[in-house]
Amino acid sequence: MLQAAIIGGTGYTGVELIRLLSSHPKVTIKWLTSRTEAGKPVASIFPSLRGISDLTYSDLGEGTLEALTSCDVVFFATPHGVAMQQAEALVAAGVKVIDLAADFRLQSLQSFEQWYKHKHACPELLKQAVYGLPEISREAIKTAKVIGNPGCYPTTAILGLKPIIEAQNDKGEAVIEPRIIIDAKSGVSGAGRQAKLNLNYAETTDNFNAYGVTGHRHLPEIEQGVHELLQSKYTHNIRFVPHLVPMIRGMFTTIHLSLTDAGCDLDLQQIYEQAYQNEKFIDILPAGEFPDTRSVRASNRLRIAVHQDNDTKSATILVVQDNLVKGAAGQAVQCMNVMFGFDESLGLNHVPVVP
Amino acid sequence: MLQAAIIGGTGYTGVELIRLLSSHPKVTIKWLTSRTEAGKPVASIFPSLRGISDLTYSDLGEGTLEALTSCDVVFFATPHGVAMQQAEALVAAGVKVIDLAADFRLQSLQSFEQWYKHKHACPELLKQAVYGLPEISREAIKTAKVIGNPGCYPTTAILGLKPIIEAQNDKGEAVIEPRIIIDAKSGVSGAGRQAKLNLNYAETTDNFNAYGVTGHRHLPEIEQGVHELLQSKYTHNIRFVPHLVPMIRGMFTTIHLSLTDAGCDLDLQQIYEQAYQNEKFIDILPAGEFPDTRSVRASNRLRIAVHQDNDTKSATILVVQDNLVKGAAGQAVQCMNVMFGFDESLGLNHVPVVP
Amino acid sequence: MLQAAIIGGTGYTGVELIRLLSSHPKVTIKWLTSRTEAGKPVASIFPSLRGISDLTYSDLGEGTLEALTSCDVVFFATPHGVAMQQAEALVAAGVKVIDLAADFRLQSLQSFEQWYKHKHACPELLKQAVYGLPEISREAIKTAKVIGNPGCYPTTAILGLKPIIEAQNDKGEAVIEPRIIIDAKSGVSGAGRQAKLNLNYAETTDNFNAYGVTGHRHLPEIEQGVHELLQSKYTHNIRFVPHLVPMIRGMFTTIHLSLTDAGCDLDLQQIYEQAYQNEKFIDILPAGEFPDTRSVRASNRLRIAVHQDNDTKSATILVVQDNLVKGAAGQAVQCMNVMFGFDESLGLNHVPVVP
Amino acid sequence: MLQAAIIGGTGYTGVELIRLLSSHPKVTIKWLTSRTEAGKPVASIFPSLRGISDLTYSDLGEGTLEALTSCDVVFFATPHGVAMQQAEALVAAGVKVIDLAADFRLQSLQSFEQWYKHKHACPELLKQAVYGLPEISREAIKTAKVIGNPGCYPTTAILGLKPIIEAQNDKGEAVIEPRIIIDAKSGVSGAGRQAKLNLNYAETTDNFNAYGVTGHRHLPEIEQGVHELLQSKYTHNIRFVPHLVPMIRGMFTTIHLSLTDAGCDLDLQQIYEQAYQNEKFIDILPAGEFPDTRSVRASNRLRIAVHQDNDTKSATILVVQDNLVKGAAGQAVQCMNVMFGFDESLGLNHVPVVP
Repeated sequence: MLQAAIIGGTGYTGVELIRLLSSHPKVTIKWLTSRTEAGKPVASIFPSLRGISDLTYSDLGEGTLEALTSCDVVFFATPHGVAMQQAEALVAAGVKVIDLAADFRLQSLQSFEQWYKHKHACPELLKQAVYGLPEISREAIKTAKVIGNPGCYPTTAILGLKPIIEAQNDKGEAVIEPRIIIDAKSGVSGAGRQAKLNLNYAETTDNFNAYGVTGHRHLPEIEQGVHELLQSKYTHNIRFVPHLVPMIRGMFTTIHLSLTDAGCDLDLQQIYEQAYQNEKFIDILPAGEFPDTRSVRASNRLRIAVHQDNDTKSATILVVQDNLVKGAAGQAVQCMNVMFGFDESLGLNHVPVVP
Repeated sequence: MLQAAIIGGTGYTGVELIRLLSSHPKVTIKWLTSRTEAGKPVASIFPSLRGISDLTYSDLGEGTLEALTSCDVVFFATPHGVAMQQAEALVAAGVKVIDLAADFRLQSLQSFEQWYKHKHACPELLKQAVYGLPEISREAIKTAKVIGNPGCYPTTAILGLKPIIEAQNDKGEAVIEPRIIIDAKSGVSGAGRQAKLNLNYAETTDNFNAYGVTGHRHLPEIEQGVHELLQSKYTHNIRFVPHLVPMIRGMFTTIHLSLTDAGCDLDLQQIYEQAYQNEKFIDILPAGEFPDTRSVRASNRLRIAVHQDNDTKSATILVVQDNLVKGAAGQAVQCMNVMFGFDESLGLNHVPVVP
Repeated sequence: MLQAAIIGGTGYTGVELIRLLSSHPKVTIKWLTSRTEAGKPVASIFPSLRGISDLTYSDLGEGTLEALTSCDVVFFATPHGVAMQQAEALVAAGVKVIDLAADFRLQSLQSFEQWYKHKHACPELLKQAVYGLPEISREAIKTAKVIGNPGCYPTTAILGLKPIIEAQNDKGEAVIEPRIIIDAKSGVSGAGRQAKLNLNYAETTDNFNAYGVTGHRHLPEIEQGVHELLQSKYTHNIRFVPHLVPMIRGMFTTIHLSLTDAGCDLDLQQIYEQAYQNEKFIDILPAGEFPDTRSVRASNRLRIAVHQDNDTKSATILVVQDNLVKGAAGQAVQCMNVMFGFDESLGLNHVPVVP
Repeated sequence: MLQAAIIGGTGYTGVELIRLLSSHPKVTIKWLTSRTEAGKPVASIFPSLRGISDLTYSDLGEGTLEALTSCDVVFFATPHGVAMQQAEALVAAGVKVIDLAADFRLQSLQSFEQWYKHKHACPELLKQAVYGLPEISREAIKTAKVIGNPGCYPTTAILGLKPIIEAQNDKGEAVIEPRIIIDAKSGVSGAGRQAKLNLNYAETTDNFNAYGVTGHRHLPEIEQGVHELLQSKYTHNIRFVPHLVPMIRGMFTTIHLSLTDAGCDLDLQQIYEQAYQNEKFIDILPAGEFPDTRSVRASNRLRIAVHQDNDTKSATILVVQDNLVKGAAGQAVQCMNVMFGFDESLGLNHVPVVP
């Protein structure tokens, strides 16, 4: 059995990792840490885990490194800036690191420091980090030492754009006009397990709003992903507007694209189906259908619908995922499976919970 | 125009008072205070008030007393323990005080100090305070100087029990067995406008729970109300269990009673209809119907259904109100109307918002 | 007092009309009709109206015309295709007609018949009908005989686009690129008071989806509105994608625009503020803010935020309204006020209900 | 592998059975029937099952019996009255029958026909049917041919009352007074996957109501369960009031009991812990805690909190379950495990989904 540690197990991505790893047949959670809840059983904080997990939160303190180096893999479900403090020592000791925060997502040091207002603690390691989106960089993940687990919005945006962008490259002609509009909608759990007034039930329910029109931190991550797909052949202008939906889990991303004449000649439905035909977690809906977020609730699946309209020379790509699973903890487990040579879907075959 | 002040206008009862008083034809809000938001327009905190209210929050500081004594009435929408610090001076200056917190609800000093863990600042004034439930103590309210505005749960419990308990007194025989069970359910706004983890949308939605089975502060207030109705003729054993419902506004109180033989002989439906036939805000549903909370949403109405079952010698009284209106701010305005000789429903004729 | 009739008062727009007209100081509802509920008090179908409305549903049958011609104004809160059967006779009798369905929205007969699959019953009257958006066509509404009350989505789209499109005309240069993307989100009440599986609580809650990507009936209405604003000077390519939000009321419309160089030179915030400076129901938020739907809940207000980003040469216009008020019944009352020379906001000054 | 059939797989209990059986290691779903959806893939009705289930709905028509007798077990997730038409033939053919509707729940023929208004089709088989609550009648289930799978409310009521009622029997003295009040609250999925106006999102959300105060069909089932536990030693007066909560899944049952002097002498916490110490799916919370429904969401667990208050001589028992799992499909699978000698929790070890 793989020995795993979860650093910071009191947030929603942390407890989702516990849910997923608890029933993973090849992993044991050896350490679960929290400074604020140290000494308490996890089931006293999350009564849903009563009878399921006997783990107790630890504050490893000075013994942290020693404890963690006895593990095979360490998940950081912590705020930005924590993983980079410990990653180098862990990697040096041969431990795989998967950071669910942003410390290892942006390959550009400058971009990281600009958007996250943190000086990066290990720029050398950052260069070796792999962006943990298996459908994009599976081979690199297999041998990666450090994974920057993607943000939830970028996962939907990059996977929703990949086939149409790669089609472009193949043709040698532009298939879409250079303006990409990503109108994204997230459930409230995406904001984390926090005591904040704007997340109070009475503030959020029966309400809908936008935020971060010009400054969401997931924008540079989306740009990085898109530019990588494009192999720097074009410059795209990406507009990203996130919204908050009164629902617990779920992310719905509507990507608005304008097609070139070359694009209109393609059968996008077919392109998407082929692009993902071997991907277990990605589902292309039949032409004309609409995905809904509950169709992936509590599962690692991501579903895409492609609406091509040659009359208006436009394409609308609709992407749904559970922001806590494929958008966070599930993706991290998927990466772990790839890193350790397990079947990629091991422990991730949950049937979506409907209704 | 009556000059009013609202002390502590950043909570849900405060903003609801602003909503109600803004369209009251005989009242002007002169002062609106907040320590944390002083200097800011109320519409910057509550954008719903943009174009409706030009008020700015003040921190009156040392000038508080002077400012407030220029008003006719002062509403305290503050935490427990604030109103009692200022009430004596205001009353001395001839200003009417309506406290929406608990400082003047419990007539027993000992009970107050036991349940609220505050030493009372003005025990003498407490003796003169009137419990602001017009359907129970309208005459006393007319001349009251200080109103203890009822808690939301006690409003439903006392008004739901009044007819059956008074019927008892009239007959000289007990109509109900001495055990009263109040199983109450409240929307989340009842917990106030607070940044608390347990009120986070993702914690509260698609969830239901109980709290305070043996220790909710509204219990002594209900007991006080019931014992007053009973005129100390009987001792009743009241069991009060509050629950939290994933809805914004609304309170549903299910009162379970056992009938005596004398009780079975009565037509409870008729008793309730007669008891409240002159009350504008109280509606007795036709026999056999069930109220729902949305039928009173954003209005000052309280609806009651009476389910008598002589086979099991039981009665179930179902009471609904909007916890922020009849359960808080609306009731305070109703008291104000009574105190100043206005039509009792002035400014309170909102049609419930459905859907 | 104006005598009004509401035809089809059992849907959500019908009951909202009742709510609004019940407290309108210059209107009496004389007739309220329903075939299915004829003979029943409205308060038996909507208990929220107990104690507020004594109206009973009528099925006027053969006496319909006679009954309705005794009114000053008739509101049709019926499905598409009903108003056009009765409008001519009513207009001939001097009664004003306001149709909340689509019979008189589209000026093109062909477009109506294509999108609604109904043969139009009175093409001549259609030519005289006025699109009831007072902020666009106030003068025409004043003397209109028949009003086609706008759809909810088009209200947000047209009012959200008006200032930027008119700016364009003024300059003689294009301010925005010809592709307009309207990504709109509606609460569930927009689908009407219907027994449908896909509207079942357990289907809709904790869920988010898109619908009608290529075929929503509000698209031709938006196109008509935009082209009228443009005075046929340009051809715009409008892409409209509606989504369903798990909330009762509220509509949030995100309009994505690309700016030309000419557009980048403008101060859009100022343009919007000036354009609507005399409109009582339209509020332009301060630069940098985001509207939320609850800030207009149960009120006739519509709030707009303008996010201009010259770096990406884009503008994002965010528009919120209550779909049942400014998006339906409130707008109809606003039109009525204009038609009868009342103050335009008479009976429409409700403070939004927050929380 | 066990061959199973699900009759009526389009409702919420049906799709939940599919979810549970899809990942059960010893069962294959051989037939899935629906008259209305025959010929369609289950994944076209429930897109959540895309990539998970290849099943297609069948209308077995005249071949029903033949098809079903090739199975080991048949689940009826149909309306009341269907299973009893086919059960005799299946049992005769050696097939185990588990009915998730009410045909085999009430042992009294008269009671069934009174409450369900159906003539029972197989009264002889009814006598052999076993009430499928493993924690009550595990031994009988092992050899049962027909299971009447319990209703959701009775599951919480009977399991919540069992320890305190059995304590009573052991002592020879009454521990509780003979009036039992069951104030129960259910999520909306309990009403089934139906197109009904009162279940429309806009009717149900931000709302709370009671229903069936004097006539819910689960009352006789609760009475039967309680009287069986009591072994007819006492007559209890059970009052059952169900309420509808705006949440998808979850059931919360508050049981109000009055203690006798004998009851006050007992440590109820200890009694409950001992009573269920060997039950894998039942969890007694530590003294003083409150369960919430989400702590069991999408799992087969049922949690109980015991609040004993000797001052008022009362006990409040709080019970939570997921109405679709332990209250329906999960319990059916648990029964199946018992009937076929599998580990009772096989395929039922889902971690509750939080948040």
